[in-house]
Amino acid sequence: MQKVLVAGIGITKFGEHWEKSLRELAVEASLQAINDAGIDKNKIDALWIGNMSSGRFIGQEHLGALIAGELGLNVPSTRIEAACASGGLAIRHAYLSILSGKIDCALVIGVEKMTDLPTEEATITLATASDQEWEAYYGVTFPGLYAMIAKRHMHDFGTTREQLALVAVKNHEHASLNPIAQFRNKITVEDVLSSSPVAEPLNLLDCSPITDGAAAILLCRENFVKVEKPVYLVASGHAVDTIALHERKSLTELKATKLAAKMAYEEAKIKPKEIDIAEVHDCFTIAEIIAYEDLGFCEKGEGGKLIEQGETRLNGSIPVNTSGGLKACGHPVGATGVKQAVEVVLQLREEAGKRQVKHAQRALTHNVGGSGATCVVHIWEKGF
Amino acid sequence: MQKVLVAGIGITKFGEHWEKSLRELAVEASLQAINDAGIDKNKIDALWIGNMSSGRFIGQEHLGALIAGELGLNVPSTRIEAACASGGLAIRHAYLSILSGKIDCALVIGVEKMTDLPTEEATITLATASDQEWEAYYGVTFPGLYAMIAKRHMHDFGTTREQLALVAVKNHEHASLNPIAQFRNKITVEDVLSSSPVAEPLNLLDCSPITDGAAAILLCRENFVKVEKPVYLVASGHAVDTIALHERKSLTELKATKLAAKMAYEEAKIKPKEIDIAEVHDCFTIAEIIAYEDLGFCEKGEGGKLIEQGETRLNGSIPVNTSGGLKACGHPVGATGVKQAVEVVLQLREEAGKRQVKHAQRALTHNVGGSGATCVVHIWEKGF
Repeated sequence: MQKVLVAGIGITKFGEHWEKSLRELAVEASLQAINDAGIDKNKIDALWIGNMSSGRFIGQEHLGALIAGELGLNVPSTRIEAACASGGLAIRHAYLSILSGKIDCALVIGVEKMTDLPTEEATITLATASDQEWEAYYGVTFPGLYAMIAKRHMHDFGTTREQLALVAVKNHEHASLNPIAQFRNKITVEDVLSSSPVAEPLNLLDCSPITDGAAAILLCRENFVKVEKPVYLVASGHAVDTIALHERKSLTELKATKLAAKMAYEEAKIKPKEIDIAEVHDCFTIAEIIAYEDLGFCEKGEGGKLIEQGETRLNGSIPVNTSGGLKACGHPVGATGVKQAVEVVLQLREEAGKRQVKHAQRALTHNVGGSGATCVVHIWEKGF
Repeated sequence: MQKVLVAGIGITKFGEHWEKSLRELAVEASLQAINDAGIDKNKIDALWIGNMSSGRFIGQEHLGALIAGELGLNVPSTRIEAACASGGLAIRHAYLSILSGKIDCALVIGVEKMTDLPTEEATITLATASDQEWEAYYGVTFPGLYAMIAKRHMHDFGTTREQLALVAVKNHEHASLNPIAQFRNKITVEDVLSSSPVAEPLNLLDCSPITDGAAAILLCRENFVKVEKPVYLVASGHAVDTIALHERKSLTELKATKLAAKMAYEEAKIKPKEIDIAEVHDCFTIAEIIAYEDLGFCEKGEGGKLIEQGETRLNGSIPVNTSGGLKACGHPVGATGVKQAVEVVLQLREEAGKRQVKHAQRALTHNVGGSGATCVVHIWEKGF
């Protein structure tokens, strides 16, 4: 079976880019990835663009052609949209296209420019990832949806408010070591508990921010290019669930995560305990705790204890969100799935600087769309 | 080489569906396709959704998960966006996924619900398929872009105003025979020439309308299901060009069409003259004339003469847009590429009723995004 190699990676600073347009961010990340691979850009066979809502954020659809044109590439280019999982799903389709044997070298770009809209309109745009007719129309936004999930998890499993806060504290700590992160300030549990309420029990510091940014990853068939520190994408899972929360049997797990993870673990022929590091989708603090459980890093209901015991910190047994996660590294929605990949590749290459995890051989990335209607899971292995 | 079989097709009425939502249109077309194939829906391995701008039109992104949920299907589902070529590009990716051997049976759904927005806002939304920074921002809309193309074609090749009008006349004539078409009234050249000016030289009747509708096609690997009248998808081409007109070398051809057509003809190992019928992207009358040339149905500059000679009418040597085309059948942007496929499958199966073309063995579909920045070309063959 052909293996899929990471030939190059690129990423912009995450934050508020008043001075740069979406296309500039996309090109900046892409050129970094191309330079990192050291290949001629004309060797690229196909582009995949992950983006959630550029039509609403900046009045620009048709990003496939747009970004290909900006890069001066005349190759098939496809935009994938799956809400906040757009970046991860773009990687998955690039991966499958290489496995098909039809494509040798694919550039995946995740990008979102969110700050051109006022915050309230950005929130309404994000709500288009929920069910418009059954959720958004009635005024519920994502903090509200995840607040319901959090309340139920606290009720069923005794997860505490402090445990939720610890996710944000950890991710800010990690972000303080990441030069591209949006928020590099360290925070305390008290800071989280005393920040403005958004949707009870979630406060402002439980929520990921609105962010501009782009990330890119160049994937190739194994022998297409020689790289010094090879990392391989070895498995990909993708699953969907109902978009509306009320149609699901359980509020305290994401079925799409469980299905996508199962698919990926089976393809990689590994168990969850064989994962050394992970980037998971912490759009809200509760989401990271549930991800621990759904991905098999702990038993159901034990996610709160896992963060409390420090196991998911940089020096823990399974470091999670070394980038700072969506919470502190930032969450340019269409870029997030690709940023997760860039982070684990840096870790596996041992190029993660002050936040480097030692002896990591295998990594997992977990990208969620909406309140869990789409999930994409990838597994990555060090090849040197 | 594995062949890709059309197992089923479905389509809604095209027009103004005040009483139906996007999800209802998508489900209606999907169930028709599933019933047409006579298979259990749980045999479907993957969904592909072609949609341009549901985020703006109805405040709903994340259609992959949404439509899977509405259909009660828990399989990987991906939304593809490539402006008005979204439907065609969704078909292409389903086709490639089957060729990869990873997918046995894929349902492709093209859908757009456009009439929930006032016409002016719909026009602004359509302009997000052009270059926002270099075109839309300055007030140009699609009629303006295609008007520039038309003027240059008339200047360079002597194409006449009447030849443009004849495209609309033909397509309305075809639509009068198509029960699902939006406009079934026949019109005359005089009607076109005396309709309201939109962007000189294009009048109202040179322009495709704003439409609601959905179309679906179920594609399988060859032996996955037995069908009475097999039609095969035998080739697929996809290419991009710069999104902004001013960056192109020529205004009178679409390079993306020429590249995508070349790719498809080479894969099918045929020449343009071996195509019996075609559905081409006539978003404006000039677009159909240029498509004749770029697809090789006539020499460069001879497109006006081809329509004038009646060669592309139902009884001509190469009937084009037997459905009524975008002009008269209607243009729900994300659905159009799939509707084109449904129409040629009906023709090849000899199920096209009063608009049936005799002895058609091979068909081409041509789906364009924007003013030509994306093009997808497919070739279909009768298998009985």
